[in-house]
Amino acid sequence: MHVTSERRLDDGAAGDGVLEREFALGGIPGILWTPAPASASGPVPLILLGHPPLGLRRMYPRLADRARRAVADGFAAAAVELPGSGDRPRWPAIEEARADLRRAVEAGEPVDDEIVDALVLPLVDRAVPELRAALDALLSLPGIGGPVGYSGGLISIGVRLAAVEPRIVAAGLFAGSFVPRAVVEEARRVTIPLHVLLQWDDEGNDRRAALELFDAFGSAEKSLHANMGGHTGVPWFAGEDAARFFARHLK
Amino acid sequence: MHVTSERRLDDGAAGDGVLEREFALGGIPGILWTPAPASASGPVPLILLGHPPLGLRRMYPRLADRARRAVADGFAAAAVELPGSGDRPRWPAIEEARADLRRAVEAGEPVDDEIVDALVLPLVDRAVPELRAALDALLSLPGIGGPVGYSGGLISIGVRLAAVEPRIVAAGLFAGSFVPRAVVEEARRVTIPLHVLLQWDDEGNDRRAALELFDAFGSAEKSLHANMGGHTGVPWFAGEDAARFFARHLK
Repeated sequence: MHVTSERRLDDGAAGDGVLEREFALGGIPGILWTPAPASASGPVPLILLGHPPLGLRRMYPRLADRARRAVADGFAAAAVELPGSGDRPRWPAIEEARADLRRAVEAGEPVDDEIVDALVLPLVDRAVPELRAALDALLSLPGIGGPVGYSGGLISIGVRLAAVEPRIVAAGLFAGSFVPRAVVEEARRVTIPLHVLLQWDDEGNDRRAALELFDAFGSAEKSLHANMGGHTGVPWFAGEDAARFFARHLK
Repeated sequence: MHVTSERRLDDGAAGDGVLEREFALGGIPGILWTPAPASASGPVPLILLGHPPLGLRRMYPRLADRARRAVADGFAAAAVELPGSGDRPRWPAIEEARADLRRAVEAGEPVDDEIVDALVLPLVDRAVPELRAALDALLSLPGIGGPVGYSGGLISIGVRLAAVEPRIVAAGLFAGSFVPRAVVEEARRVTIPLHVLLQWDDEGNDRRAALELFDAFGSAEKSLHANMGGHTGVPWFAGEDAARFFARHLK
């Protein structure tokens, strides 16, 4: 793991600050946010920040907001570029699948399972091992301990991670994207506590499929928080609830 | 409004206490909980505590817990005996409808609309005017001001109250009982902020009907919090979320 740049975020009058480090790990860029100065009470838990495959640079403002909140709550936070996104090599098969999806949505046609599978499954298959390798590196840094929470982003990646990665002990998921049938089946094997956000009128999301996925999770503790509005209209208090969920399970 | 008894609840070491007053209003019993001593900062908002039609005496332990929490959060709380419940005159038509419902549920039969209508609509028609009259009396007491929140209980009563009573500015509802079609239609006229709790595996509740009711509400701010477990298994953190909802809207 190679730190490529480092700066301290100005946090106004609010006391402790945030150290932001950009890194590269096997050619994959990422960003790590930690308390500055490092927490006096020892290593802090880590929240892995999921995000849509639009590139870290484009997602930066929202990621940095979430990271500041996580650090203020006593955590470290990290985001890793997804395969085919940002400055990483283009991935033509995924781009084709995305174009197929866009055509179907714009034509008002139902999005069939093949398009969803072609778009999401290769991304999950490639991203999850990369994220697990990033966890190996991040958790070996001084100042970062376990346990790990996974928050937001493409929900299928969250499902797979929650199912296979034992260091992740709690996940806050955003039911805001298409989910392959195979991932719904994987959800039955998830047993960690889950906090699932659903935007009731999400234009890019099938509400029935989201409820079916929530039902499928095997977790004894799972909460669904549905709020009004579209994909980007998550109300501020929903963010507060999610933060309390992580505080409950990572501390 | 006639106070029939009054006592101070012991609150251990936690500072301010709770004054509990039993009252009767036109022959209808009720209980009022207020901060003791009265709030130094003036009248406090009121939360009307809904409850199933099982009698205030039987419901007392759970009501008193909710009331203590409301008072600790800076509110007054009140509960009013429902028609046909507790020490009020029996209501044979409702008892017959309840027996019909129980027979259908125990036989594993679908509960048809007629049974639900016969059980719920007369109760709503009679209880809602009584609760509004209780609000007139309660809000005229020193120490209690507006606005008013409605919390829990039979959801159909909450829907009607939210639709017709302008002093109620926020409602926390529990999707845990059968809802007549007519009430789903009334829900479209509700515009106040709503916080709806759903127990995902509620044995006495049809999940699909609960989601349909949530969808019907006309409110621009409505949140559905679904958690695992049966009717009485609401997790503690769901109570915390509901308390924060009222703090957001009544203060």
